[in-house]
Amino acid sequence: MKLPPPIEKAAGKLAELPSIGPRQAIRLAFHLVGEGRQNIRDLALSIAELGKMKSCERCFFMHENSGPLCEICADPHRAQNTIMIVEKETDLISLESTGKFSGRYFIAGEMPNTGLIEEWQKLRLQSLKSFIQKPAPEGSGGAVEEIILAFNPTSAGDFQASFFAKELGPLAKKLSRLGRGLPTGGEIEFADGETLGSALEGRRQ
Amino acid sequence: MKLPPPIEKAAGKLAELPSIGPRQAIRLAFHLVGEGRQNIRDLALSIAELGKMKSCERCFFMHENSGPLCEICADPHRAQNTIMIVEKETDLISLESTGKFSGRYFIAGEMPNTGLIEEWQKLRLQSLKSFIQKPAPEGSGGAVEEIILAFNPTSAGDFQASFFAKELGPLAKKLSRLGRGLPTGGEIEFADGETLGSALEGRRQ
Repeated sequence: MKLPPPIEKAAGKLAELPSIGPRQAIRLAFHLVGEGRQNIRDLALSIAELGKMKSCERCFFMHENSGPLCEICADPHRAQNTIMIVEKETDLISLESTGKFSGRYFIAGEMPNTGLIEEWQKLRLQSLKSFIQKPAPEGSGGAVEEIILAFNPTSAGDFQASFFAKELGPLAKKLSRLGRGLPTGGEIEFADGETLGSALEGRRQ
Repeated sequence: MKLPPPIEKAAGKLAELPSIGPRQAIRLAFHLVGEGRQNIRDLALSIAELGKMKSCERCFFMHENSGPLCEICADPHRAQNTIMIVEKETDLISLESTGKFSGRYFIAGEMPNTGLIEEWQKLRLQSLKSFIQKPAPEGSGGAVEEIILAFNPTSAGDFQASFFAKELGPLAKKLSRLGRGLPTGGEIEFADGETLGSALEGRRQ
């Protein structure tokens, strides 16, 4: 038996989203019909509203400002020559929520499973390089103070970091990565060997 | 740091869907913004289209017909007095795809985890009962030929089946459940004890 066409169409679009499988998409579509017209309209509208967001010209975070820059990049109190490279928007939000960073960000985009950087990611990287090389105030005049490679502490993250270190190393006075060691609230007994090794290597006074 | 309002709103609506968690919803919203305006509009539109679907007055399956009944319930070649009770729309589609059933369906709705039937499910059940009790041609004139309780072969499904058996037993000449045994393509060596037990009990000549 064929699916009703509206279900098939909505399920097809939902299944294009990451982490939603085709069967789950069909169940979601049926569920939505059951939720009633008001709920369907609310969801459709909230999704349509996303189309109004823009990508920051400098860091590629999403924003709704009238200008080309997001709040952070447009903020004169934020150091534009200390740049934290993150993979995705949600990483930026978690890091920004610490309140401990006063530089700006650059969203590299999620690395595909192939390990190869995609064309649009190359373009982003190119725009970062030209920003750094341009003279102030449009750019950083050749080299920034520090670039923090805030990738996940995984082997994929290590690979990404080494890629960006090679590309951006000559353009920064200092390159760093996030510290590794025991997570707050963790227990030494249950920590894995890699984490304990990092905690020993990176011990503090 | 707070999420941009459109992201927060869309993520909030997405997280209301079953099987989508709040963090996944935020990632989906950011992902959508990155997909560009055309894709966002397509998804929003396909969801809005779901609002045009109606629920069949008799079996509660979704349809787009001008009348109150779905294709199956409106089909004069389908026996209206052989009713297969299913939990959800996707179960109906799988069963209908076998092409081996010429009766009609009744969608009971997914049972909540509490094990208690919800108010809207009671209303559905009530409408089925009055259909059966009404004289022909509006109803089945007191009792239908057969009611098939097509619930999952799990303990939750067994519970649902016993609930519906109690409610509908007096209204059907015959009550049945789907056969249990070895699934086609399965291997006896790896089948669990319950399945093998059912296969022995339900052996065919």
